[in-house]
Amino acid sequence: MKIFAYGIRDDEKPSLEDWKSAHPNIEVGYTQELLTAETATLAKGSVSAVVYQQLDYTREALTALAEVGVTNLSLRNVGTDNIDFEAAKEFNFNISNVPVYSPNAIAEHSMIQLSRLLRRTKALDAKIAKHDLRWAPTIGREMRMQTVGVIGTGNIGRVAIKILQGFGAKVVAYDKFPNAEIAEQGLYVDSLDELYAQADAVSLYVPGVPENHHMIDAAAISKMKDGVVIMNASRGNLMDIDAIIDGLNSGKISDFGMDVYEEEVGLFNEDWSGKDFPDAKIADLISRENVLVTPHTAFYTTKAVLEMVHQSMDAAVAFANGETPAIAVKY
Amino acid sequence: MKIFAYGIRDDEKPSLEDWKSAHPNIEVGYTQELLTAETATLAKGSVSAVVYQQLDYTREALTALAEVGVTNLSLRNVGTDNIDFEAAKEFNFNISNVPVYSPNAIAEHSMIQLSRLLRRTKALDAKIAKHDLRWAPTIGREMRMQTVGVIGTGNIGRVAIKILQGFGAKVVAYDKFPNAEIAEQGLYVDSLDELYAQADAVSLYVPGVPENHHMIDAAAISKMKDGVVIMNASRGNLMDIDAIIDGLNSGKISDFGMDVYEEEVGLFNEDWSGKDFPDAKIADLISRENVLVTPHTAFYTTKAVLEMVHQSMDAAVAFANGETPAIAVKY
Repeated sequence: MKIFAYGIRDDEKPSLEDWKSAHPNIEVGYTQELLTAETATLAKGSVSAVVYQQLDYTREALTALAEVGVTNLSLRNVGTDNIDFEAAKEFNFNISNVPVYSPNAIAEHSMIQLSRLLRRTKALDAKIAKHDLRWAPTIGREMRMQTVGVIGTGNIGRVAIKILQGFGAKVVAYDKFPNAEIAEQGLYVDSLDELYAQADAVSLYVPGVPENHHMIDAAAISKMKDGVVIMNASRGNLMDIDAIIDGLNSGKISDFGMDVYEEEVGLFNEDWSGKDFPDAKIADLISRENVLVTPHTAFYTTKAVLEMVHQSMDAAVAFANGETPAIAVKY
Repeated sequence: MKIFAYGIRDDEKPSLEDWKSAHPNIEVGYTQELLTAETATLAKGSVSAVVYQQLDYTREALTALAEVGVTNLSLRNVGTDNIDFEAAKEFNFNISNVPVYSPNAIAEHSMIQLSRLLRRTKALDAKIAKHDLRWAPTIGREMRMQTVGVIGTGNIGRVAIKILQGFGAKVVAYDKFPNAEIAEQGLYVDSLDELYAQADAVSLYVPGVPENHHMIDAAAISKMKDGVVIMNASRGNLMDIDAIIDGLNSGKISDFGMDVYEEEVGLFNEDWSGKDFPDAKIADLISRENVLVTPHTAFYTTKAVLEMVHQSMDAAVAFANGETPAIAVKY
């Protein structure tokens, strides 16, 4: 049995080699190239293709793949909205994705960034880099002294709560769909307004569904404490970025961390160094000492990549054996 | 009753104002100046002096203070080795210090820096600052995947362990004087060698006593895992810095964080920007992407400063009332 993987990055190779060692009877071929109508022939002789790309999985690509006899497609990522499902259906494609790879990757990132904002590490690092080793006035705040509002208590939000509790912070949580364990701990408040009123810092873990669009807008910010810290490693459309910038300018928001941005497609994961940067708001935010911007890297850990590779390879084998893996996409 | 405080920094003023509000019957005078033979007269009419300085408390200063009738001296910091105790004894000085202000300040800092090293935030921040928003190859490691060796399980080490457990990391601990709670959790290994053999990352929380001098030397490092991460927010003399630099150069040590340095006096808490930097080793370490240097700022939080101010002021009142506060220094 042979499986062919497209778009394999250098950071994925150790995980792919691990998997190969654990599956000596399965042949694995791979390429750095993405799946297109042209590269589809590379999968000839394989039972399944394993893929990860922002590039569309077009009718042409799927047709070419089916023509070389491959109709099992395992995505290493979660998003499936770039698949031409109509074409996939015509060729009876089996498709899987990796919906949960590492909630900890994102929860840890959000809490590390929050703790850095409280500790003013960006300002301190800049001082140290230019050999100004004075501590004052760059004084930090402790995590344990904060009341942190956690919005959303799914897989990621619950890991964030555990980290906060390890630090000794007080947690107040809100979710439309309460979790039994968090309810039992008595962490929920009854409304977002109550959370905003109590929280020294707010961190978000909710999906970017339409009803959450611009959840954090001028009205929401006005209900928060003066000098609130906001962290968003969830979805960009949760934030009205203009309201955030206004809040930073007025001092209402003391610090802000963002890993996601409503307009991030085509901006993040690109190299703009030495080029005209196309987004003045993000350029402004990157330059501020009380703001930490990361380009959607919260997920990007060795453990997450390992899970993406291993789960997708396992699903590819399952499809080839006529089984339906738990992570098969129903469409 | 009047108390006079010397060397009050801007970041201490809010805590001092808090204390004053809570003690309306006590008059508080203060100055930015340090206590010297010249400034001692400022305390005239006060019952106690409250101080914090690296500058020596000389016979001359203590004499001048006694001459204006002040023989109660409350230090806002822990160190007392810059006091002329012989002179202090002659004048029957009551002295107090603040031995425990915030173990969390230091434990949090060490864990934030460790998590940053694992996540490669220095490299990522540098990329983002120059508008390179590509994630690869700056992939992070998760705290929860690490076995962290905690050397020393006193007040600070135990807080660090709680933070690590919140992240879901595996903890192995060592202390010559085991703590019952940590023993009950089964976290101790029998020797430093065993800790070095198991730990992906090592963090230190032991005092800088002579027997711990250069505890982390070439021999110790050679017993650690390849690619170990080392964090020291404890005491500078625990580290043979040349051995650390060798380990970084060979790749044996993948990342290193330090808040303390054997030769830090006269180097840290000074502004060297635009001047010749006097320590080539530290300049080298500051410039490395896999090293985080902070100039003994782990303790420096609003909560720690509040404790230092409030505890010393309370002790000053106790002395004035003829009581012996728990934090009185026996000499």
